Amino acid sequence: MRLLTRALLLAGSTLAALPTLAAEGMWTLDNLPHDDLAKTYGFKPTSAWLDKSMRSAVRLAGGCSGSFVSAQGLVLTNHHCVIGCVEDLSSEKHDLVNNGFLAKNHSEEKQCPGMEVNRLEKTEDVTARMQKALAGLSGKAFSDAKKAEQSLIEKECVGDTGDQRRCDIVELYGGGQYHVYQYARFQDVRLVFSPEYAAGFFGGDPDNFNFPRYNLDMSLLRVYDRAGKPLVNSDWFSINPTGAKEGELVMTLGHPGSTQRQLTMIELETQRDLVLPFRLMLASEYRGLLLQYSTQSEENARIAQTELTMVENGLKARTGMFQALLSPSVMQQKREQENAFRNWVNRDSARATTYGDPWKTLSDTQIAWRNLYIDYVMVEIGFGAMSQQVNWARTLVRGTAEKAKPDAQRLREFADASLPAVQAGLFAEVPLYTDFERAKLAWSLSKLREKLGVDNPVVKSILGKQSPEALANEIVSNSKLGDVAVRKQLWDGGADAVKNSDDPAIKLARLIDEHARKFRTEYDQNIEPIQKAAANQLAKARFAYQGTQVYPDATFSLRLSHGVIRGWEEKGKAITPFTDFGGLFDRATDFDPFKLADTWVAAEKKLSKKTRFNQVSTNDIIGGNSGSPLINAKGELVGLIFDGNIQSLGGSYFFDESVNRAVSVHPAAMSEALKKVYKADHLVKELKLK
Amino acid sequence: MRLLTRALLLAGSTLAALPTLAAEGMWTLDNLPHDDLAKTYGFKPTSAWLDKSMRSAVRLAGGCSGSFVSAQGLVLTNHHCVIGCVEDLSSEKHDLVNNGFLAKNHSEEKQCPGMEVNRLEKTEDVTARMQKALAGLSGKAFSDAKKAEQSLIEKECVGDTGDQRRCDIVELYGGGQYHVYQYARFQDVRLVFSPEYAAGFFGGDPDNFNFPRYNLDMSLLRVYDRAGKPLVNSDWFSINPTGAKEGELVMTLGHPGSTQRQLTMIELETQRDLVLPFRLMLASEYRGLLLQYSTQSEENARIAQTELTMVENGLKARTGMFQALLSPSVMQQKREQENAFRNWVNRDSARATTYGDPWKTLSDTQIAWRNLYIDYVMVEIGFGAMSQQVNWARTLVRGTAEKAKPDAQRLREFADASLPAVQAGLFAEVPLYTDFERAKLAWSLSKLREKLGVDNPVVKSILGKQSPEALANEIVSNSKLGDVAVRKQLWDGGADAVKNSDDPAIKLARLIDEHARKFRTEYDQNIEPIQKAAANQLAKARFAYQGTQVYPDATFSLRLSHGVIRGWEEKGKAITPFTDFGGLFDRATDFDPFKLADTWVAAEKKLSKKTRFNQVSTNDIIGGNSGSPLINAKGELVGLIFDGNIQSLGGSYFFDESVNRAVSVHPAAMSEALKKVYKADHLVKELKLK
Repeated sequence: MRLLTRALLLAGSTLAALPTLAAEGMWTLDNLPHDDLAKTYGFKPTSAWLDKSMRSAVRLAGGCSGSFVSAQGLVLTNHHCVIGCVEDLSSEKHDLVNNGFLAKNHSEEKQCPGMEVNRLEKTEDVTARMQKALAGLSGKAFSDAKKAEQSLIEKECVGDTGDQRRCDIVELYGGGQYHVYQYARFQDVRLVFSPEYAAGFFGGDPDNFNFPRYNLDMSLLRVYDRAGKPLVNSDWFSINPTGAKEGELVMTLGHPGSTQRQLTMIELETQRDLVLPFRLMLASEYRGLLLQYSTQSEENARIAQTELTMVENGLKARTGMFQALLSPSVMQQKREQENAFRNWVNRDSARATTYGDPWKTLSDTQIAWRNLYIDYVMVEIGFGAMSQQVNWARTLVRGTAEKAKPDAQRLREFADASLPAVQAGLFAEVPLYTDFERAKLAWSLSKLREKLGVDNPVVKSILGKQSPEALANEIVSNSKLGDVAVRKQLWDGGADAVKNSDDPAIKLARLIDEHARKFRTEYDQNIEPIQKAAANQLAKARFAYQGTQVYPDATFSLRLSHGVIRGWEEKGKAITPFTDFGGLFDRATDFDPFKLADTWVAAEKKLSKKTRFNQVSTNDIIGGNSGSPLINAKGELVGLIFDGNIQSLGGSYFFDESVNRAVSVHPAAMSEALKKVYKADHLVKELKLK
Repeated sequence: MRLLTRALLLAGSTLAALPTLAAEGMWTLDNLPHDDLAKTYGFKPTSAWLDKSMRSAVRLAGGCSGSFVSAQGLVLTNHHCVIGCVEDLSSEKHDLVNNGFLAKNHSEEKQCPGMEVNRLEKTEDVTARMQKALAGLSGKAFSDAKKAEQSLIEKECVGDTGDQRRCDIVELYGGGQYHVYQYARFQDVRLVFSPEYAAGFFGGDPDNFNFPRYNLDMSLLRVYDRAGKPLVNSDWFSINPTGAKEGELVMTLGHPGSTQRQLTMIELETQRDLVLPFRLMLASEYRGLLLQYSTQSEENARIAQTELTMVENGLKARTGMFQALLSPSVMQQKREQENAFRNWVNRDSARATTYGDPWKTLSDTQIAWRNLYIDYVMVEIGFGAMSQQVNWARTLVRGTAEKAKPDAQRLREFADASLPAVQAGLFAEVPLYTDFERAKLAWSLSKLREKLGVDNPVVKSILGKQSPEALANEIVSNSKLGDVAVRKQLWDGGADAVKNSDDPAIKLARLIDEHARKFRTEYDQNIEPIQKAAANQLAKARFAYQGTQVYPDATFSLRLSHGVIRGWEEKGKAITPFTDFGGLFDRATDFDPFKLADTWVAAEKKLSKKTRFNQVSTNDIIGGNSGSPLINAKGELVGLIFDGNIQSLGGSYFFDESVNRAVSVHPAAMSEALKKVYKADHLVKELKLK
């Protein structure tokens, strides 16, 4: 049944319905479905409610969501959102990943290297301004003008606040709207609490994206101000350990990373026939490597743990997306929706003139994109040279060259607005495991050769007559970039210093950058502008077709999704919405990933087995929403989003309310665990948990 | 370009043409396209020519082809066809895989454990008899009657020759015809010559399925008779070191394993949407594991070498097949062909009555097959428990139970006709690398859990509360099945001995067998008979539609394919049909897999760089053809098939003569290498190489 489940379930679903389904939608706060909220739930959020919610929610710049939960800067997010930091703070002797971490007081709170927290302060629609700047342009001219105008807007928005403010242009509706998002930027973020891996990720990859579930996927961070003091903040969510009832309205306020619900058929086919199988095979092989690497020793297992988790998570997520696109019924309904929309445009000559044929344009552009895809992924994105040292080197090579240019002419990731994050990453004190790095780099260079071909000119220029293994060994053994001081010296020395460096990682990065820039330029000038222009036409047409009560695809910016606590039906069996502590102890075995953490074994007798642990709700979420607060109408925190069920994985492309569920940690579980398992009385007090 | 190459190339190809293209076809010797051969090449094979060719060609029961090349039982096949044997004969101290092997005389020739060579003696059409036995039956009755009748026919064919003869029922045209193939069976096969891995598989996986190519993918075996003497045989191919000219007729006589050219659209979609992605992801992960395992030590690399080669080869082949099915133009043309055929049946009411709607039947059956597929592959096929010890245990558990039944009621792989091969495999003295076995078994058990699901009843019954790692460790450490004597004792002890065994591998195998038999029965009774009946109807309709001048899909039985030595055009560039020794030395680096074997470095000055090395021809081949002789109209051996080009990988589903090429070792290269690199004067003499 497995691979067909989705197809069968969807065959009877209501996917085709237009407009939007009840719980569907990742809504921007300035365009909420107020009528639906009022009609369905009797909920009418005030502007004060919205403002407080916006300022209580935060974004972890690395790719997660979170929320303030105290007046002293305490941030609640997922265990899996801080695991990279916990690993960076660990060593062979202090394995915080597997033993967990709890700071007894502020002085024990440890800074997370390179972590950045953003709090949205305000947004502004700059569509008219951007469109004016781009009018009539295409290709390089479009690309240049876009960078320049974005840079100008972001600069004006940041003003003279320096690193304390971050402003990002957010392209909504595939470029149909441009907004500037202004964030308070916090770069001193410290780890307060993280449970043991066995508690935070109980069930591991086998249970990932599954429900019933038993994960304490929570952690606490604290944001510090410029003076090195805990941030004093007035807006935060109070945790209500009672939680929400089945059927009750619950909302997430988080940062969904990316969805592709507005893709045209040809774009979906690129995903199904090229992008997803390519990524799945690459990641599967890498997973096999990491699994075997982990069996070699306990220390190896520790070193590879978070990378493996990340890879397995991505693999499972993409497998679900792939399955969704392999479903004939999904594709059929997508096709019917597109045909209906396209016919609506074409059957009126005025509309046909106004909107043109963006589908045709996108179809043509897909050919160019498919031809570029593997080069782009392996060389520009960097799957062909996976290595911490090479990553630093590439940042140094490209970053120093870019920062020598006027802001408006730079690649966006090196614009002034982005440099603080770039530098924080580059200068972060993180461990370098050379044996692990060697394995990753040798393997990925061999994939570069395999995917592009032995006789490909890029491969020949990078490898010459060397083997991937020999080149990787030379770089990992001889590069000095593991030393922060060396990286800092090169960064400060600028393009000349980097050009004159004979560090082997820098040498490789120079070679890669030469080719990677060509692929990037091809994309930036010959693909993206055309896609964007067509998407813009499509968005205009869609507003006319469906009205403005539609939500944009996810863009890792703040969204509200509404829904209710509710289970679902699977193969005729009802899945109830709550699990409890008892289920955890029943499911436990003596072996990872089902082995209980020692603290939980010790606390078992003190815990009520009926305590609610995890729960599901109909909220429409996606990767990036991890760590989102689940709040009730009163603005109380009644859950901590950490996953979707397996049926939610098609959510990239469509939302099926009958089975798509968000999974969250119940507040009672967080409260009980902090009190009885971790005895974190000071946090219990700060969080005002009765 | 890579992933699109096939689609783009095929867009302009002549795939849709019916009937058969010039070089297309894997023909049975009793239904050769004589008119085409005469018209196109002026070639009219006599029955003596055909008889000699049939008796000169051999099959390696493990999955390859070969041919007699001397009167003393010398068999020429590929290096990659004997590599498993070479590995079995190796140890940490005697690494024959990487150092190569050359027996100086008969007494140094080493027996290959479990290897079996078959020479086809005659074939007989038993379609009428089988159809009579099966008339009106379905489900279990069909399945039982089929086994019984096959068993009877095979028994009659084998007669009282014991192990010396092997008779197989071959189902041609998807069950449209049944033939019985009678082989001479040789089970004493000894290794005579195998070049170093670096020579036999120069370029490794990166160059696999590519051309230009520089592989000495040859080896020599010798068949011994029952008296332990080299087989005296009168039919063999004489090697002509001059080879064939560009454009000259060349034929392969070999055993193509399996093609799916007659699949209906729904069956192709099962391949594209389920079977291939599933296998590709599983194999990719396993490959990553093997790659990392190999980096751990030189000995590990040696142990995993052939397994890795096999996995990589399968992966590359299936990737090509997957790409072919992802090509919209291929699928479109397949669809048009099917529609035309289907319309031809339906537009005549007599035909519609005669043939029914087998497409509809096959479509219904696909649903059942898709639902069963993952269980079948993981449990019955055994991807969920990959281990030498578990394999032996499963053969013991199932084999002893089956051989207690009357022959006609057994699963076919344990019929009397198959038992000699089963026993040869079971009693082969092969090394057991426990660390490697542990890694494979732990990983594959974890895949069983992953693919079927943690809460699946089969998984729960097999794993209980144990982890895959713990169970694997228990079995690998404590099973005694590594000892041939123990396996022999259990086999001879029969079902009772096996039932009473507390060997942990046997215990696991008993559990697996219980579930596996259910899946097998589901397939044998509820899927295969319906598919076969529908395929039979389709085959009858196809004969009426296209005439009898069509070839059946490949069935690992003897076929002739005709073609000419010819290059092809790729991205506007002509690929010439021959490579030479000079190209090998140009391509060499200091690193595997492009590192030259020491013997070749030493011999470089003695070798003419212009010596032809590898060549391509338009012959229609597929996996299983490896080791096939390439012969000219005079019946001289002018090449040794070892691969197809990358464009040939869609050959499972269709043949595109414009780009599909067979790759073979040129006879001049074999001759020169034996003379000057390996100084095998005794073999040069026996092979009559001037």
